[in-house]
Amino acid sequence: MRKILTFIAFAFSCTLAIAQPNRLITTGTIESLESKILNETRRVWVYVPGSALNDISGPKSYPVLYLLDGDAHFLSMVGMIQQFSRNTLCPEMIVVGIANTDRTRDLTTSNISGPIRMMGNAVAPTSGGSDKFLAFIEKELMPFIESKYPTQPYKVFVGHSFGGLTVINALINHPHMFSAYLSIDPGMWWDNEKLLSQAQSVLRNKKFEGKSLYMSIANTLLPGMDSAQAMADTTMQSQFFRSIMKLDGAFKANKANGLRYGSKFYAADDHNSIPIISIHDGLRSIFSFYQFNLTAAEIAGFNAETLKRIDAHYESVSKLMGYPVKFPEMMANALAYRFMGEGRMAESEMLFALNIKNYPNSFNVYDSMGEFHEAQGNKQKAIELYKKALSIREFPVTRERMERLLNEK
Amino acid sequence: MRKILTFIAFAFSCTLAIAQPNRLITTGTIESLESKILNETRRVWVYVPGSALNDISGPKSYPVLYLLDGDAHFLSMVGMIQQFSRNTLCPEMIVVGIANTDRTRDLTTSNISGPIRMMGNAVAPTSGGSDKFLAFIEKELMPFIESKYPTQPYKVFVGHSFGGLTVINALINHPHMFSAYLSIDPGMWWDNEKLLSQAQSVLRNKKFEGKSLYMSIANTLLPGMDSAQAMADTTMQSQFFRSIMKLDGAFKANKANGLRYGSKFYAADDHNSIPIISIHDGLRSIFSFYQFNLTAAEIAGFNAETLKRIDAHYESVSKLMGYPVKFPEMMANALAYRFMGEGRMAESEMLFALNIKNYPNSFNVYDSMGEFHEAQGNKQKAIELYKKALSIREFPVTRERMERLLNEK
Repeated sequence: MRKILTFIAFAFSCTLAIAQPNRLITTGTIESLESKILNETRRVWVYVPGSALNDISGPKSYPVLYLLDGDAHFLSMVGMIQQFSRNTLCPEMIVVGIANTDRTRDLTTSNISGPIRMMGNAVAPTSGGSDKFLAFIEKELMPFIESKYPTQPYKVFVGHSFGGLTVINALINHPHMFSAYLSIDPGMWWDNEKLLSQAQSVLRNKKFEGKSLYMSIANTLLPGMDSAQAMADTTMQSQFFRSIMKLDGAFKANKANGLRYGSKFYAADDHNSIPIISIHDGLRSIFSFYQFNLTAAEIAGFNAETLKRIDAHYESVSKLMGYPVKFPEMMANALAYRFMGEGRMAESEMLFALNIKNYPNSFNVYDSMGEFHEAQGNKQKAIELYKKALSIREFPVTRERMERLLNEK
Repeated sequence: MRKILTFIAFAFSCTLAIAQPNRLITTGTIESLESKILNETRRVWVYVPGSALNDISGPKSYPVLYLLDGDAHFLSMVGMIQQFSRNTLCPEMIVVGIANTDRTRDLTTSNISGPIRMMGNAVAPTSGGSDKFLAFIEKELMPFIESKYPTQPYKVFVGHSFGGLTVINALINHPHMFSAYLSIDPGMWWDNEKLLSQAQSVLRNKKFEGKSLYMSIANTLLPGMDSAQAMADTTMQSQFFRSIMKLDGAFKANKANGLRYGSKFYAADDHNSIPIISIHDGLRSIFSFYQFNLTAAEIAGFNAETLKRIDAHYESVSKLMGYPVKFPEMMANALAYRFMGEGRMAESEMLFALNIKNYPNSFNVYDSMGEFHEAQGNKQKAIELYKKALSIREFPVTRERMERLLNEK
């Protein structure tokens, strides 16, 4: 099928346009689940990539990104992932944004009973529930998501501020839960830097092979104070910054533990403005191995060597992701039709064949190869391929084509 | 009213939760309009800030951002604006994403009749419709949006590639249409750099006071070629880059024309990956004057001088935006309640009074000042303020409070 996405967009838009002249733009659903661990109802904002609805191409499943303060960051995260995944800068992903009930309870890592100076002497009697909250995510939320949506085992965990603290807690104390971590200006000052001290020791002694973390650091320095002064300072005002920088130092001093680590200080961003650029840079850093482009020269000189480079890239990506990742079906499909249009039949066939190898359960790969053979005059092969495609799903255009060829014989 | 946003979120979620257990997350609506100028039906994706639905605070109207290739960039643009506006990095805005019909026709600035080398010798017989498309935006789309939505006159125009070309065309040849421009890796090579040549002359001779433009430049250089080599090169491969750099040079050489201009070369981004970071940096650049934070020291020592700084900031913002922009009602409200909680009654009253001055049509400002006077024991004043609030809209909690005070008298 040549223009599969156009077809789907058109069909989809027709269906909805009839139902409602001014269509709503929807990005996901809000789901509720009962948590026994937390003894309350929790709401999650769930986004599933649009390609999941498309049964013309092969069945798909996706890594899952769990996002703290989920309602606040949901839309910008989804928008970012849509843009990035379109350009192979990251995989398409399911996003699960966890909305808060008692935020301080769930996202802080130990209980502070008295007034908290850093918070203007506010008290937080319920604080210290991070481990329990992570148990909810692991034992209740993840199974819920995995039973309802097409997931892959690769999981990303993203949080800001106290959320960033819980992300670090997950890495240090529950490292089996996630593959990649984005900790945005984390509240490492919490409880006299208790988690920080623990992290400094764990990072020396545990292995983190196959995991990656990006940490962003906001400019929370007082006016006129620079980074060096803040590190030498001992006042509460600079502790927020200092505690994160100490953690940054611990990550950098323990590279032998195998963690793939990136971090950056954002001089132009404060604690509140930093999330969006952190999401941008964090996804780019975590998935720096993911991007794949064919150069103009490779397209011009496409041959078996190019196929090998494609295979080698996706083999290494699969290793890092922990499940088989293939050259995107629609990229191969589009390029194959382009070659066909240019009369480069050998190159075209290579790519159609690659798609059949990579996506054996896709209607589209057989339909496309059928069109290729029909264009070549190989009626019998075309009929067989259309038949194979139609055994996966019914499609009127393909059935007509097949019947026309059968009648011509 | 102390926690207005919580209240609204709760009320909203109750309403919808009853209707549908798994609620859809909606971001806007797709609207259709008939264009006489283009002789076709056009679809636009429209986002209106959530605060528009809130009639507890004062009535609001918003600048409008017109976005080319609107469906593709809609979600990431809306996500970005939500995050930024929450932190006063830009105003809340209505986003109008224009979906394409004949993209090359609408977004190119002159007709090329023969095969186009830069596009692999493809032909584009309908090309050259940018001026007509801008007439559609000005004479049909803008009136449509302004008749249906609460708009302010400030308008932003955003486009990528050919869209970026049309953004430059709007600035150079139709400068009355927009206040600010974001041109993302624009296709300045089009038609032997025809628009570029025109721009080089117009930028010398016209004034652009009060307007601002951000232009992003992707790394489209061939492997191994650096920027200086590309500028000295004469081949087609580097023309995309060269033509944009020449325009960049023209902007920088003509600062006397009053245009506020920012640009950046993105070494790590290609033509397809560059939109999202351009949206980020472009909005930050265009609205660099907009952000307002009170420092911790200002909050600690809040007084009449602080109020003056607030007023001065928003006076200068209003001048640049071309309509009155005030210190956000909910920021003042939250800070006033915080001061009230700390027993800092004079500072609290200053901010409640500021809100009444700035938002005389808001239910909330009178309700809040009523609570303030009730806490002070000024029953009569509290009753008057609750009555004033209830004359704007009915609200059960406020009515109960007022009746309780009336009964106590």
